[in-house]
Amino acid sequence: MQQIKQVSLGFLGCGNIGGGVFRLLRDMHDELLARDHIDIVIRKILVKDIEEALEINARKGLDVPRELLTENASDVTQDSEIQIVCEFMGGEQPAARMMEAALNASKHVVTANKVALALNWAQLQAAAERSGVGLWYEASVGGVIPIIRVLSVNLESDRIDRIYGIINGTTNYILTRMTQEGKDYGEILADAQKLGLAEPNPEADVEGMDAAYKLSILASLAFHGRVTYGNIYREGITGIQAEDIAFGREMGYTLKLLGIAKRQGNVVETRVHPTFLPASHPLARVDGSLNAIFVHGAFCQDMMLQGRGAGDLPTASAICGDIVEAALTGPRYPTFENTPEPCPDFTFTDNWLTRAYIRLSAVDAPGVLARVSECFGAESVSIASMLQKEGTVNGRVPLIFITHPAREQAIRRAAARLDPSICTLEQMIRVEE
Amino acid sequence: MQQIKQVSLGFLGCGNIGGGVFRLLRDMHDELLARDHIDIVIRKILVKDIEEALEINARKGLDVPRELLTENASDVTQDSEIQIVCEFMGGEQPAARMMEAALNASKHVVTANKVALALNWAQLQAAAERSGVGLWYEASVGGVIPIIRVLSVNLESDRIDRIYGIINGTTNYILTRMTQEGKDYGEILADAQKLGLAEPNPEADVEGMDAAYKLSILASLAFHGRVTYGNIYREGITGIQAEDIAFGREMGYTLKLLGIAKRQGNVVETRVHPTFLPASHPLARVDGSLNAIFVHGAFCQDMMLQGRGAGDLPTASAICGDIVEAALTGPRYPTFENTPEPCPDFTFTDNWLTRAYIRLSAVDAPGVLARVSECFGAESVSIASMLQKEGTVNGRVPLIFITHPAREQAIRRAAARLDPSICTLEQMIRVEE
Repeated sequence: MQQIKQVSLGFLGCGNIGGGVFRLLRDMHDELLARDHIDIVIRKILVKDIEEALEINARKGLDVPRELLTENASDVTQDSEIQIVCEFMGGEQPAARMMEAALNASKHVVTANKVALALNWAQLQAAAERSGVGLWYEASVGGVIPIIRVLSVNLESDRIDRIYGIINGTTNYILTRMTQEGKDYGEILADAQKLGLAEPNPEADVEGMDAAYKLSILASLAFHGRVTYGNIYREGITGIQAEDIAFGREMGYTLKLLGIAKRQGNVVETRVHPTFLPASHPLARVDGSLNAIFVHGAFCQDMMLQGRGAGDLPTASAICGDIVEAALTGPRYPTFENTPEPCPDFTFTDNWLTRAYIRLSAVDAPGVLARVSECFGAESVSIASMLQKEGTVNGRVPLIFITHPAREQAIRRAAARLDPSICTLEQMIRVEE
Repeated sequence: MQQIKQVSLGFLGCGNIGGGVFRLLRDMHDELLARDHIDIVIRKILVKDIEEALEINARKGLDVPRELLTENASDVTQDSEIQIVCEFMGGEQPAARMMEAALNASKHVVTANKVALALNWAQLQAAAERSGVGLWYEASVGGVIPIIRVLSVNLESDRIDRIYGIINGTTNYILTRMTQEGKDYGEILADAQKLGLAEPNPEADVEGMDAAYKLSILASLAFHGRVTYGNIYREGITGIQAEDIAFGREMGYTLKLLGIAKRQGNVVETRVHPTFLPASHPLARVDGSLNAIFVHGAFCQDMMLQGRGAGDLPTASAICGDIVEAALTGPRYPTFENTPEPCPDFTFTDNWLTRAYIRLSAVDAPGVLARVSECFGAESVSIASMLQKEGTVNGRVPLIFITHPAREQAIRRAAARLDPSICTLEQMIRVEE
């Protein structure tokens, strides 16, 4: 008969995700006791306002006992009986400060908070190592997708050279609906907001910040060196037109907001932007609010992991996997130098090799095509395919082409050569294979 | 400056996979030394015949030094300096006996051998626990797909109720080519054998044994109780006709050899058989020798992991992930009772709920359809869709239909009711959603 281990948790926050974890642990308590010999008990839950929290929980059918609730963070982070602090507040502060306080008080910390982690990772990791406790964050990227453990453990002996991630469910939902319904960004966004699938202030999602925080975590682990949020080039989806999605489709491509991290030698590129993928690419078929991460390594070759990137219960599943790991085994620290600065071995480039979808608005006159070709040819950017549609609007026609692989800066220089009296650059979307 | 940890390995076998691991460790040695502070050294390699091994390795460009080779297993399993024994022999014996000897001599064991593991797991696990060492087998199912760690760690606090796996690359390759080229099984098999993608004796793959060994490992971990090879219903792909694939396609389905494990309460069903999936199912698009595993749990919901199920380097990546884990952290044992017998809590059923694709050969005469419907109706199996083609062969026509969900045994009883003078059952393929 194995001895039962008591595991006391403290929660920082108890909103959507915290509620999911509460529900999972209540539901699974006896099973985890029977099979893992751990008796997981929630001792304290930090909330902003106890009365309000009781009311919200009652509405959700969550019977969180009043005596667990506190409005004082140190009741959680400093409670001598709490071994694991779970942070569910979201946002950088005060979440990061509270996590650091918990780590300094020798408590393991489990978090799903990519913002607080991405911006304060070095400090939090240092606190964990000083106290000899662990910092777990499987749920911080891709929800239930096991990418953190796969990069840190399964692929530890591999050499990862490429990650493509659909790591923001809101933008994938919007782009999927734009693709399926042919509607414009604004209309779908408004509908997604109505359905609760986009925030009232959607900036962090649609401008790609959320994906960039996550990509900085993934790239750091995959490349074994710090990649900060500031190292990531970022473009959101607010400038995407329905017609771009339609033209891309006609040419065999599907539009996704991708987090891309590539490494060749010590040259690293990390970027978040709308990306056309061939319709046959496995990521092109990941629709709606699903997330998926594609990894390529020297040995593992192609791998893809797909699952729910958000939602209270899937996120709770990932978090509770971390809680059990924290309860049963010791911490395992990332194997790269823990500095807040970007890894000095890396050269971050903004001049990556890419193909590009270009949409121009050109005057409908002879010789225009030749002059456009000249601008791109002058920068050694060659054109792989072209689409020209009939139908003049204000004397102009859309002219769409996809380039062969070229350097990002060369493509930009070529576009800058265009004579605005003849044609203007309306859209540039990168194309990956 | 962290101290360097010496890690000495012994190999049992050095064929395709062993060669891949040798290559990876040679290539990654300095990186692993730098980032994980482990100095991995191969001390001994068991081969059948030293001269032959030298010749084969030379042909493959592998410079395995002669002094590492031995023809004596105990030079590996009993060497006092070896900490981790890696088994690459394949087949049940003598691999299982040698792994047990190594575990008894307090060496960690890393293996990709699903046969030896599935048939001797309890004994090997007991030996590991007695010696306080670990038994690692991430590469035993799905090659580089991280399913073992995901089931044991990430999803430890979840309640898995369904697994669908494409876990045999050879049969997926054959079925993919049959689907794409419309050719018959025998022709594609012969070609796959010529290309080295199917064994000269393909039985273990095409009859589903390989998938069944793997499924027994997955189901045991997912359901937290022993599921043995003998608990698994098994049908191979040798009886599949090109026309079945074509008819299924016409009705919107794609054929895959699936390992299926479901649990509802304590009722467990585990089966390996050809399965029609809707063409829109993510597994339906996993083609060629790729593997993929689809998991559904009460909390995580749908998850899919996809990657190379075989090949020397992908398998080596998974194995070396285990080696580094064995070197850096302690063992973590499965959380179910370690008996060789099937878990006594489970009721294994052979009467699962399924839809079925049925192909009959029927006389081309009035009233036949009514009499067929009667046979199925008498067993409460109702028909969801039907396909009848023109063109009589020997006075008979193919009659194809897909049933609504029904009990397996009811479908079988209905088929047994058919009057052979009117129609015969030519094919029955289960359909999952």
